[in-house]
Amino acid sequence: MYKINHTTTNELSRVQEKITKELASEKIIQDIYEYIFQSKGKKTRALITLLASQSKKIKPLRRIELASIIELLHTATLVHDDVVDQSKLRRGEKSVNQVWNNSYSVLMGDFIYSKAFMLMMKLDRPAILKELASATNDIARGEIIQLNLFENYLHLDLDDLLKVSYLKTGRLFEAAAKTGAMLADSSEADVKSFGLLGKNLGIAFQIQDDILDYESLHINTGKPALQDFQEGKITFPLFYTLNNSAKDDQKFLLEHLGKKKLTKTIKNRVFSLVRSDMPMQCSQTLLNSYISKTKKSLEKLSHHSCYNEMLNLIMFSSQRKL
Amino acid sequence: MYKINHTTTNELSRVQEKITKELASEKIIQDIYEYIFQSKGKKTRALITLLASQSKKIKPLRRIELASIIELLHTATLVHDDVVDQSKLRRGEKSVNQVWNNSYSVLMGDFIYSKAFMLMMKLDRPAILKELASATNDIARGEIIQLNLFENYLHLDLDDLLKVSYLKTGRLFEAAAKTGAMLADSSEADVKSFGLLGKNLGIAFQIQDDILDYESLHINTGKPALQDFQEGKITFPLFYTLNNSAKDDQKFLLEHLGKKKLTKTIKNRVFSLVRSDMPMQCSQTLLNSYISKTKKSLEKLSHHSCYNEMLNLIMFSSQRKL
Repeated sequence: MYKINHTTTNELSRVQEKITKELASEKIIQDIYEYIFQSKGKKTRALITLLASQSKKIKPLRRIELASIIELLHTATLVHDDVVDQSKLRRGEKSVNQVWNNSYSVLMGDFIYSKAFMLMMKLDRPAILKELASATNDIARGEIIQLNLFENYLHLDLDDLLKVSYLKTGRLFEAAAKTGAMLADSSEADVKSFGLLGKNLGIAFQIQDDILDYESLHINTGKPALQDFQEGKITFPLFYTLNNSAKDDQKFLLEHLGKKKLTKTIKNRVFSLVRSDMPMQCSQTLLNSYISKTKKSLEKLSHHSCYNEMLNLIMFSSQRKL
Repeated sequence: MYKINHTTTNELSRVQEKITKELASEKIIQDIYEYIFQSKGKKTRALITLLASQSKKIKPLRRIELASIIELLHTATLVHDDVVDQSKLRRGEKSVNQVWNNSYSVLMGDFIYSKAFMLMMKLDRPAILKELASATNDIARGEIIQLNLFENYLHLDLDDLLKVSYLKTGRLFEAAAKTGAMLADSSEADVKSFGLLGKNLGIAFQIQDDILDYESLHINTGKPALQDFQEGKITFPLFYTLNNSAKDDQKFLLEHLGKKKLTKTIKNRVFSLVRSDMPMQCSQTLLNSYISKTKKSLEKLSHHSCYNEMLNLIMFSSQRKL
């Protein structure tokens, strides 16, 4: 896990408390809500907000509130993603669509989204609200573009994948860092640096996530191996493989991409193709370049109290296995 | 159709223009967006906003913007509803989940919701934003409660159905009227009257919608007959029927409620049970009582420029066949 200060650990627990205290009067909603938030998750985005908002100028409670809003927005996207991806598991537990069904997932996602917007109103900071509304819109945009990538895989280039990674993952990291800094009334320069840091860290997070999909058939990385592949997602390692393999191998990969059921033999061949040197090296190089960008932004924030904790988070992100 | 003034008709066209001008840079999003908004719908909620916001104090453009936001929120709920209800048709056209699939519907709903919140930020009226965030949350709440009604049909009473009708339909009508009045800086008393008017008109709209489901197997009312029944929804006419029929009939209805495929014989028996005198009379009486409440609120607004147009809308709502 991250090496973070005792204070920050406490603040993260308060985020969890704050979120789970948001009750609805109806039992069925409360049941699903509690089910969703029983798994605490890593709360990386909330952590980024807490770090970027560190300041004596602002009451801790306000920072907890903003971090909770960020976590609610993220959770709403997860609940909807499980419908989009027809996922059966989320954080090792059955997904909402499995325990209840797709209808409940769609509506609970909407419930959590709008709950987040209600809490934003209480925060009474229009510029922050504006950033979060736009981030929410960009996440949906990114996911729609991703759905559509597969149909255009022949004309795909690296920039398309980077754009999707930015929109679906980097955008909320960016907003989490930026709004944290905004809440603390940081200088314009610091808000900008935090925004860039978040953006690039989010993209790095996504690249690492893509790599983990091909990490191992055996080691438990928190998500089942080949999940992205079986959901038909063209991720960074697969992109590099498709661009550099023989026609036959390319054909084989595309034939099985997005298939819910794959035999062990097929899985093994997919692995041996994608895990070969080139795709993994290229993905790792790309990851490193985004980690470097992130560190460069952090250097501009060397005066900030969160410097060490943020550096730890960045180092963790470049090596995480779950 | 409603008898509305030439000016209001023009304003409604400008709402349609405003909405369809909200472009995304990606072709796939633009395609789905245009598909959704090609059907213009009745725009009842936007109309209510336009009427309630009539005032010389406010620029027409601001009213068009608010009405467009209301229409976008409503459309987002429809796109998600089609996933929830697995509907194949929307306004006589194939639903988004039919032309594309559920994944696109979930994400396009999110895209449109967040677009609405982005436009709200531009409106720069925190109290209006607060009302709309809370309304959005209530709509999701109402829909979740409705999903859960079926499982508790034995303990269902009229208040449960009225609550669902308020949350899923009345709430946005209420917010549409209330925020319209708020935008025009109306007196507190007027905002309250508009809110009540919207709320009760929305509930009346829902009761009429429920009645139309059992209107006829043959006449085209814009939605297929028995759609609610086949989606497993306990609506007002069905509620009254279940509460007053013999055990055998009750058992028959519950056995077939929510079944996607029904033979003609079964459909005919469902119809003859629900369309019998009592359930239809009770539903009609309930509808009339909500129309009366709506008119009572309108009487308090007899000084308002929208009085006649609003009265026409209320009269239309009590008799509409689509």
